[in-house]
Amino acid sequence: MKIKVGVVGYGTIGKRVADAVLLQDDMELVGVTAHSYNYRVAIAAERGIKIFAVDGERESLEAHGISVAGSFDDLLENVDVVVDATPKKQGAENKKIYEAKGVKAIFQGGEKASVADVSFVAQANYSAALNKQFVRVVSCNTTALTRTIHALDQKWGVKRARATLVRRAMDPAASRGGPLNAIEPTFELPSHHGPDVRTVLPNVEVFTTAIIAPTTLMHMHVLSVKLEKDAAVEEVIDLFRNTTRVRVIPVDQKIITTAQVMELARDLGNKRGDMMEICVWDKGIGIYDDELFFMQAVHQESDVVPENIDAIRAVMGFEDAEKSIEMTNKSLGLK
Amino acid sequence: MKIKVGVVGYGTIGKRVADAVLLQDDMELVGVTAHSYNYRVAIAAERGIKIFAVDGERESLEAHGISVAGSFDDLLENVDVVVDATPKKQGAENKKIYEAKGVKAIFQGGEKASVADVSFVAQANYSAALNKQFVRVVSCNTTALTRTIHALDQKWGVKRARATLVRRAMDPAASRGGPLNAIEPTFELPSHHGPDVRTVLPNVEVFTTAIIAPTTLMHMHVLSVKLEKDAAVEEVIDLFRNTTRVRVIPVDQKIITTAQVMELARDLGNKRGDMMEICVWDKGIGIYDDELFFMQAVHQESDVVPENIDAIRAVMGFEDAEKSIEMTNKSLGLK
Repeated sequence: MKIKVGVVGYGTIGKRVADAVLLQDDMELVGVTAHSYNYRVAIAAERGIKIFAVDGERESLEAHGISVAGSFDDLLENVDVVVDATPKKQGAENKKIYEAKGVKAIFQGGEKASVADVSFVAQANYSAALNKQFVRVVSCNTTALTRTIHALDQKWGVKRARATLVRRAMDPAASRGGPLNAIEPTFELPSHHGPDVRTVLPNVEVFTTAIIAPTTLMHMHVLSVKLEKDAAVEEVIDLFRNTTRVRVIPVDQKIITTAQVMELARDLGNKRGDMMEICVWDKGIGIYDDELFFMQAVHQESDVVPENIDAIRAVMGFEDAEKSIEMTNKSLGLK
Repeated sequence: MKIKVGVVGYGTIGKRVADAVLLQDDMELVGVTAHSYNYRVAIAAERGIKIFAVDGERESLEAHGISVAGSFDDLLENVDVVVDATPKKQGAENKKIYEAKGVKAIFQGGEKASVADVSFVAQANYSAALNKQFVRVVSCNTTALTRTIHALDQKWGVKRARATLVRRAMDPAASRGGPLNAIEPTFELPSHHGPDVRTVLPNVEVFTTAIIAPTTLMHMHVLSVKLEKDAAVEEVIDLFRNTTRVRVIPVDQKIITTAQVMELARDLGNKRGDMMEICVWDKGIGIYDDELFFMQAVHQESDVVPENIDAIRAVMGFEDAEKSIEMTNKSLGLK
């Protein structure tokens, strides 16, 4: 029996999760919700993905030639689990509906941690999500920090981690919003990312600060981490090379900027030019006294996609975390 | 017998042409040249594409673990035709070598028109390139102007065309060069694009002006065209809908900016998120008195790729232009 999945909210994350669900042998994409007519919905319909209309949108979608398979309620009647990728705070609203219907749901990092039973990064705490009704995949930035800090913590123990997050202003297709030619400080100390990492890794001391830069491609993090035990640069490179969903970027291949990291993703043939792995430059790793420094680039549009797939399996009771991660990685072309 | 193709210069255009050659049933990619070690070469080698080293680079490539199949000369010994996608002016240098070896070559629009026997846009003058030794695929901008102006000229006759080109500053992976936060005028009147269109369409009166804007995604052209006969907006939309390698963008699908056009290309699943078709917004087409106005977006990285494929067939004596265009389009997922 395949897991029946619905995707609620068909934007940046929703469309990618839907594509990823279609690649899983153990899942069936029942359909996606459409809020209004646009090219994303038009392409989905052309590809044979079933479109379920949210309240009052059926007529407008049909007027544009979209065949509507049913309502939001109809979708919920026919799924085991939904991935809710609606805009911030809408997920918490929708939760009431999922509760009433007894449907499991995966929320995104835009929601508060309290929306779900557990905040989730597959390689860190898969088993905590087993059989839960509600799981929250943490944000792109929190996912990135968790992947690398967790790996370091498992290997050497992390005494404390500090990170400066240089956040992208908007996603690539946005034409408005965010600074155009300035850098914006955020006066939230710590930025919400540090506490958010601790929803997944409660025992790691993390403090983050964040600023926003005029770029759309990727976030970039600069970290300094005190380890419990000594490590050498080469050992850190080896660790990250062997950490799932982390990619070590060889600088001698002339991949320097985030623009070049994204060009690498395009050349690899990844759909939409996505880079789901957190990218750590090999020459950006250094150790000074007892502190480890490194830089990582985060593709905000796609790094949480594999987490959503693993979260689906976890809430449905699939117990083997490693096996789920392996299945997801293989389907998405990750090492 | 498949056509044996070599790609000389493995950058923005070269890597795309190589991928396109691999998709043709009637062509064999013998290999590509590498100038230095980088991620493009590393990925090509991983994919089993044969790498031929330019002078003095063999050792450096091999030191990085690249298996080198031979020299530039070795590549030329084994091909019927090369696509030369080296930087501007290098093609003219290489021409001497191709002449000495008796190898056919397709040059790019960065070279002067005099480098080749004919300047080429498949749908406008395919047959002019038949059996020629040297053909020049015109630049991305000239290709775009030629596609739409030629279609209008065939249907209604073009009395004269005027175009303002707003050029992208650099390609997406570039991290230096071009204006960052200013718009640069070009004091070349006409800009070289107008005369360049006339190397393909000698009988059409075209005058262009060009400026450079701080964007990396696409060029944009704003055109005004006087037609010999009256046309209605709906007829122009129909014409462009039925013109090969032109795509009419439905604004009611909320595709407004060039960023959204490129997002459409990503969602369509095109490799590298490429958009080889010239994109004309339906709501940007208007007629005022006897003048037609429209706007088109040009993906500078990819629109000339299908032209290179057709040019290969033309120089090799494949006579049926329509058939070649159809084969190329089908292989690349163009309508």
